[in-house]
Amino acid sequence: MAEENTVYIGKKPIMNYVLAVVTQSNSGSEEVIIKARGRSIGRAVDVAEVVRHRFLPDCKVKDIEISTEKITGEDGRTANVSSIEIFLTR
Amino acid sequence: MAEENTVYIGKKPIMNYVLAVVTQSNSGSEEVIIKARGRSIGRAVDVAEVVRHRFLPDCKVKDIEISTEKITGEDGRTANVSSIEIFLTR
Repeated sequence: MAEENTVYIGKKPIMNYVLAVVTQSNSGSEEVIIKARGRSIGRAVDVAEVVRHRFLPDCKVKDIEISTEKITGEDGRTANVSSIEIFLTR
Repeated sequence: MAEENTVYIGKKPIMNYVLAVVTQSNSGSEEVIIKARGRSIGRAVDVAEVVRHRFLPDCKVKDIEISTEKITGEDGRTANVSSIEIFLTR
């Protein structure tokens, strides 16, 4: 999957990411993927919900996948972090 | 869907909910639903991931649904809150 279809959710205000998803979709992407890890997972769901209810009513959640990623910190220790991918299509 | 198959995620330690899901599954439920709203959404994903990676390796994520719920506060104002339902089956 092309990385350019993917919007990574971080700590910015939700509307920043909503705008990014809407722009991506309006620029011709049939599918936009919203990705988040750890504490940002709830925000990813918020972004998907705001996009499809307020901005792109013809947009559907095609699939949602969850997984676990191993993160290695600066001290060399690894931690497991949950992640989510939400696939939106029109 | 019977409510008894459902584990609601709140603010307790993750392992409490993991145990609840594992117990529910081992007591014969073919499907267990993990539900969460707002800030607990990330914890719901953590619970599902810990259950299927550490306790029930034959367990699969059948489906994940996201939605928006309207919450009415004590002052009568309504707010939209995202929610997630994770359907686990064996």
